[in-house]
This record gives sequence, C-alpha cells and structure tokens, in this order.
Amino acid sequence: MNTDTRLRGVFSPVITPFSADLIPDAGRLVRHCRWLLSKEVGLAVFGTNSEANSMSVTEKMVLLDALVEAGVPGHRMMPGTGACALTDSVELTRHAVRHGAGGVLMLPPFYYKAVSDDGLFANYAEVIERVADQRLRIYLYHIPQVSNVPITLALIERLLKAYPQAIAGIKDSSGDWENTKAMLERFQPQGFDVFAGSETFLLANMRGGGAGCITATGNVNPGPIAQLYRTWQQPDADAQQQALDRLRGIFQRFPMIPALKAAIADFCGDAGYATVRPPLVALSRHQSSELLLALKGQSFAMPGWERN
Amino acid sequence: MNTDTRLRGVFSPVITPFSADLIPDAGRLVRHCRWLLSKEVGLAVFGTNSEANSMSVTEKMVLLDALVEAGVPGHRMMPGTGACALTDSVELTRHAVRHGAGGVLMLPPFYYKAVSDDGLFANYAEVIERVADQRLRIYLYHIPQVSNVPITLALIERLLKAYPQAIAGIKDSSGDWENTKAMLERFQPQGFDVFAGSETFLLANMRGGGAGCITATGNVNPGPIAQLYRTWQQPDADAQQQALDRLRGIFQRFPMIPALKAAIADFCGDAGYATVRPPLVALSRHQSSELLLALKGQSFAMPGWERN
Repeated sequence: MNTDTRLRGVFSPVITPFSADLIPDAGRLVRHCRWLLSKEVGLAVFGTNSEANSMSVTEKMVLLDALVEAGVPGHRMMPGTGACALTDSVELTRHAVRHGAGGVLMLPPFYYKAVSDDGLFANYAEVIERVADQRLRIYLYHIPQVSNVPITLALIERLLKAYPQAIAGIKDSSGDWENTKAMLERFQPQGFDVFAGSETFLLANMRGGGAGCITATGNVNPGPIAQLYRTWQQPDADAQQQALDRLRGIFQRFPMIPALKAAIADFCGDAGYATVRPPLVALSRHQSSELLLALKGQSFAMPGWERN
Repeated sequence: MNTDTRLRGVFSPVITPFSADLIPDAGRLVRHCRWLLSKEVGLAVFGTNSEANSMSVTEKMVLLDALVEAGVPGHRMMPGTGACALTDSVELTRHAVRHGAGGVLMLPPFYYKAVSDDGLFANYAEVIERVADQRLRIYLYHIPQVSNVPITLALIERLLKAYPQAIAGIKDSSGDWENTKAMLERFQPQGFDVFAGSETFLLANMRGGGAGCITATGNVNPGPIAQLYRTWQQPDADAQQQALDRLRGIFQRFPMIPALKAAIADFCGDAGYATVRPPLVALSRHQSSELLLALKGQSFAMPGWERN
C-alpha cells in the first residue's frame, strides 16, 4: 500500500463541547478543531477524552457531517468508531470512511469482560467485512484501564494476517512502555503504525520507530507537542519532552476531561466549553482556580488561541 | 403509589436470538417470551444475558415493537434501557414507557470508571427529567463485576429522596449477599423493591422481604424457579432452593450466555437459537455435548417447551 497516505504525527482526542442543555455543539467543535489543525495537530474526534461513548451514534454522525461541511479535511481525522454493539461500530465506521477519514480508532466491544481473542477477532472481522470499503484503515485502541478489554499481541498478529490492509495500527494507552515497545518491535516493521497513548511516550515512541502520539493534552498544548514530533532528532528533544511532561503533570492532578475543558473555556474566554455530560462532572470553582493558577507559571501554548 | 401495579416475582433476562447473519430474530424471541410467560416468568428483555449492549438502540426498539405487536403485555416486561450515552438511555427508556413497560432496568453509564456519585446521580436525574413520564419506574442495575460502575447505597438514598416515584427498585447482581441484605434493610421498607440478581439468593431475598429475582437461568429453568417464588413459605423451600442451585451450577461451568442458548437450541430442536453476536463465542461442539449430558441427569423444566 501507499504509505504516504498513512496518518502520522500528533493527534488529539478532541474534546466535545456541549450546550447548556447537553446537546453536542458543532460550532464550538469546529472552532476548536480549526485551532488544533493550525497547530499541526490531527483530529482523533470521538476518543475517550471526547466523551464519545456519552453520545449516540447519530449525534456523532451529525458532528462528523458538520466538520466535513466546515471544510475539515478527512485525511486529518481519525474518528473513534468502536462501540459495544457491532451494528453501531459498523454504522459509524462506514460514515467516517465515506467522509474520507484517514483512519478510524476502534475500541473493542467493552461491555462483556474476559472475552476471548476469538470473539474480539470476530468483532473486528465483521466490521471490516460489513463496511467493505478498500479505504478503511483501522487503528486498534488499547486502553485496558478504561475498556477493561485489552488488545493482546496475539490478537494483533491474527488481525494483521487476515486483514493486512485494513488493520493499520494501534493507539497504546496502557501506559505500559514495555507493551508499546513489544508492538514497535513486532509489528511496526510490517507497516503497523504504533501511536503512543500520550505525549509522555512520544520521544521514546519516535526513537523506537513509531508513528506519533494521540494525546488528551494535545487539546491544550498542541504546538509544543507537535514541535517535538517534528524535531525529535534534534539535540534538545529530551528537554522538550521534559517540558511537555511538566505541563501534562498539572492536568493529571485533576480529572482529565473536565480539566481540559476548564482550561479551554478560560483561555478562549468562553465558559461554554466547560460543560461535560454525565456521568462526568465539571471541575468545581476551587479546582478550576487551582488549575488555572498552576498553568499561569508555564510557557503554555493556549494563548495562541484565536478569539473568534 | 399503588403498589399493586409493581413488578414482582421471577424475571428472566431473555436471551436474544440472532439469525445466521447476526440480525436480531424477533420471531424466535417472541416464541421464547411466550414460553417464559406460560411458566410465570416475566421478561427482563435487554439484560446482560440478552446481549443487549451488543445491539443498537434501534435494533432494541424494533424488537420491543415486535413483542408488543405479538401481544406480550407491557406489565410483564422490564426492558434494560441503560446505556453509556445519556441520549441512548433516554430514547430507549421513552420507547419502553410508551409501550407500557412495567419498569425498566437501568445500567449506569459504564464506559468511564471511578466516576462520582454526583455524576451518576446527574445521569439518572437527566433520564428521568427528559423522559418526563409519570409511568416511568426505574430499577437500578448493580452488576459491578461487569459494568465496573457500582450503584452505592449512598446513591440509592439520594435518588430515592429526589425521585421517590420513578426510582422503583434494584437488581443486585453483585453476588454479595451482605450488599443485598443492606438494601433490603434500608430501602425495601420504603417500597424500593430489591430483586436478587439470580435464583441463588431467591429464598434468602424473599425471607428478607424482597420482590423476587431476575435470573439468567430463568431462560431454561423457569417453572421451578417461579414455583419457589410462589411457595417460598412452604416447608420444602430449602429443598427447592438446593435443586435450583444444582441446575444453575451446571450452567456455571460454561460461559453463561452461549450455554443458555445451546440448551434452548437443543431442547426446542432449533439450532438457530445458539447463535451469539461477537464478542461472544458459541459453545464448541465438545462443550455443548458436555452441557447437554450434564443436563440429562436433572429434572429440568425445558421439556415443557412447545415445539412450534
């Protein structure tokens, strides 16, 4: 296959803005996506940090339509499309592929626990067969601490063998570098692109031959993360990595999604960005102040936000 | 409220038949439901053992329509309607209430882990406010080993206080009798109906003042389980309980859902009942034989199946 068209670099699981009555807000989403693209960060819309599973398939399809209508290029998007229900995964994946998405990030079905690799293989196989589109590129989504359904090395091997074109790579959000390393060593040489699950492992992942990272804090610190991706072979790469880690460390003191939204709301002077859907809860006023105070001391990319 | 209309007794999370190409099979579902009703077992369609989360909301609404069209009475149904997405929960719950369902069994949103009671309260509150129907009766669904999102006693207390009419009870599938007992003691006196999560605790639950049980094996052993519910105050109740436990023990040696489906397929001579959707996997031929052999030795209710 033509590897030039493969997704690489830094992607962000884009936060999903909601109106006060909890309706997905396409206008604010488009604005945030444009800003991320201007900072060279691609759009992993409908990720964990997008509250994707707190939205219906229809709500996600409508948002995707809005992004495409707003001129967001498909090849900069990697929408999350994996759901518990096979039919939901198929419907959303098909929609994403038709919109020209460069790839889709696909959770395994995550309701049943301790399911077999046979069952997970059958799930991905059914999606691929039913979508039946040569353009489909699936990035598997390994986030065992949330999904509780791991993507094992044995499953990857089996899927790659059966569907070498459709199975394009993985996002490893396990936080277990040994696991990422094993994927890099075993599968990256076959053109299976390994994305680190956060910028914490961006430099290590690039040095190991990986494709980039997909990271929550890409929502708030896109410029510097993209810069490390571009310049990871420069002498200051380790210093850059340390600076990224410091900034991320601040967000990690808080519930991540509400904290990202509080920061974005503050930096762009639009409180509407702070709304979350249940079961998440927005930061308290006290938490918000603490977060914003901590961020003030950092050389932080958010001031680049265009207030429009 | 009029407690006469409350759901009580034995319910089964009805298995969902699928065609060979994995489409929900309304015809086989209706047939199985009629048989369960003839055995005095109510229909907790769309439960964990129904592979409910492996179906889209639309697929479940279509099945519900088919059941109602087939004359299945709403007051014998307790459809599962809780989903990760608030909007999905609202849509399916509204549909169930409009069809006259006696209650709905509602999982908490289960993608995010370690969410707060504030967030879970907000989720249930939003569903109740949006469905906005006086007929809504919610049975909370506590199954922490699968959902990984427990329903705490503190959350129940708060929900009951805010929505004493809509919050009708709970299914406790934790398998932790101390937890069920605490619910019986604290909340059953307020008219909050506690259902045991299987027949294993049916007798204990009835002795503690509970409302019955909702159990997977109701799909295959409905008569005897319903009989214990009817006669739990009789002298042979403990012996009945032991017989139920023996039968259940056989199924517990296998993956429960495929085992239920294999047994039903065999007893009604219709292999079509055995199909499961990914990520589940049907029993192997060897497992099936082993299960059916073990069942042969039991006084088992399945022969009551009408072969039509």
